[in-house]
Amino acid sequence: MQSTTALSEIIRLLQGSQHVLMFTHISPDGDAIGSLLGLGWLLQGQGKATTLVDADPVPAELRHLPGAGQIIAEPPRARWDAVVALDASDAQRLGPSFHPTEYGDAPIIVIDHHITNQRFGAFNLIEPAAAATAQVLVQLADAWPVPITQPAATCLLAGLVTDTRGFRTSNVTIEVMATAMRLMEDGANLAEIAERSLDYKPLGLMRLWGLALAGVQVDGRIIWTQITQAMRDQVQALNGNDGGLVSFLLNAPEANVAVVFSEKRDGRVEVSLRSRPGFDVSGLALDLGGGGHPQAAGCSITGPLADVEARVLAAIRGVKRTEG
Amino acid sequence: MQSTTALSEIIRLLQGSQHVLMFTHISPDGDAIGSLLGLGWLLQGQGKATTLVDADPVPAELRHLPGAGQIIAEPPRARWDAVVALDASDAQRLGPSFHPTEYGDAPIIVIDHHITNQRFGAFNLIEPAAAATAQVLVQLADAWPVPITQPAATCLLAGLVTDTRGFRTSNVTIEVMATAMRLMEDGANLAEIAERSLDYKPLGLMRLWGLALAGVQVDGRIIWTQITQAMRDQVQALNGNDGGLVSFLLNAPEANVAVVFSEKRDGRVEVSLRSRPGFDVSGLALDLGGGGHPQAAGCSITGPLADVEARVLAAIRGVKRTEG
Repeated sequence: MQSTTALSEIIRLLQGSQHVLMFTHISPDGDAIGSLLGLGWLLQGQGKATTLVDADPVPAELRHLPGAGQIIAEPPRARWDAVVALDASDAQRLGPSFHPTEYGDAPIIVIDHHITNQRFGAFNLIEPAAAATAQVLVQLADAWPVPITQPAATCLLAGLVTDTRGFRTSNVTIEVMATAMRLMEDGANLAEIAERSLDYKPLGLMRLWGLALAGVQVDGRIIWTQITQAMRDQVQALNGNDGGLVSFLLNAPEANVAVVFSEKRDGRVEVSLRSRPGFDVSGLALDLGGGGHPQAAGCSITGPLADVEARVLAAIRGVKRTEG
Repeated sequence: MQSTTALSEIIRLLQGSQHVLMFTHISPDGDAIGSLLGLGWLLQGQGKATTLVDADPVPAELRHLPGAGQIIAEPPRARWDAVVALDASDAQRLGPSFHPTEYGDAPIIVIDHHITNQRFGAFNLIEPAAAATAQVLVQLADAWPVPITQPAATCLLAGLVTDTRGFRTSNVTIEVMATAMRLMEDGANLAEIAERSLDYKPLGLMRLWGLALAGVQVDGRIIWTQITQAMRDQVQALNGNDGGLVSFLLNAPEANVAVVFSEKRDGRVEVSLRSRPGFDVSGLALDLGGGGHPQAAGCSITGPLADVEARVLAAIRGVKRTEG
């Protein structure tokens, strides 16, 4: 059991560390921020000094999480005892604030649940069976063992709820439900977390969905739509986030794969992919310079939008149905 | 404990019954159909003959539930040992197939979780703390006790998942999560149930949402939109169901109350209301001839649409914030 070894080694390392530098991935989602803050609270509860970093700002729907104000874009130059990377498949996903050559003897600890993880740490705890990195952190807390306080439980449940879209994904096992219950027993308020982190759709975003859904297309069991800069301007949706539109598209029984093409100000197009079990989009995303899970992946490609759309749709049509 | 007494009396009655006639409410949702089928499976497992009735057809997204094909619109005239009404606040909600004067000595048993329930049965098991009628039925199965087989677990979990919008509502306690886990242990597949029953959005409905969301309005912390017959015709959404649009509207942080005005072919306007805790819309719905829960209620009013909209919005503005 390689990961059991990694788990105990990582616990030993964290126990012996006083100053811990912690990163999560850019364009952070609920599991990124929830895991970063959740582990932060666990370590702070053990008297450790933690520095929490994300090069990108915390999205509006996650700013209510306890401790969100602690997250900084660029850490100070300092001596660290350990460096932790959370929910990131590779070092690039940690963005420009991650400088692995500058940490001296401090070991890099990678904790993640993405099967595509490149194991770029000195210690790698990768649990693809976990529904969220937050779930791996609950295992870590219990193996340590350290108590999960209310703020930690709130952040970790936010990670679990958002990454499973409210316990909807096919990786939600009885263990995932037990983890959620346990975090509720530790004081997390599920309804409030779901409402504020997962379902949050400001009026501008709701109207943006209206435009995007009115233009949805289906062909050959692929459903897709576009979010252009013109659409964002029309509804005054300033936040770059599309609020999980691609997952919503896959609710159409007419499709097995869903794609959202989202045009960015810098001319790149962010491509979000979702698929039903039996269709693996992670390899395709990896080929296009991105990554992810079999059922949820993404990449970013230089536009124009129409070219990206044609290229990605052709690539999806080449994906064979897998077992399952 | 009145409901404990009702529970044991109802179990005794069902134990002594051979032919059980069962109803659920018209315009059935997942808890109506899930509870009807779930209790049907429990009773069939005990060798009882059951007749399952809904005057309205089973919606497309619930037809995958095991036993859905057993549900009929009008029962034969026959001798029944007991008549059960599920998830219905009053006898009118059972529709034109319910003929209470024709059941002779057969007691009418009401099982529900709506606080507005009129207790119209000879035996009434009303549990407002339960998140779904399906949850009350799990309590009944355990108190009996009878095993919950896989088809029963699937139907009951569908009731729980749909009525809580995937464990999102404020009444989702640790007990609700424990009930869900327990039904998963009994063989229910949560992801499949959520995908097929809760998230099912055929392309036509998705485009209908597009039109409705593009026209969403907000004023004084009320968010609302319309679904007209012209919109349905434009996107060829033939199903009358709006797929939970009103719950989606309440995801806007700008609002505390959400309303969807849905125009029907017969000229009536179905008004669906949702509110955040602290704003009770059940009294308002009751005043307008409908009913429901504090946070989820509805009514049906003769049009035209513009008049209904003005009347309902004025009534909402009169609702005072309650404690909580």
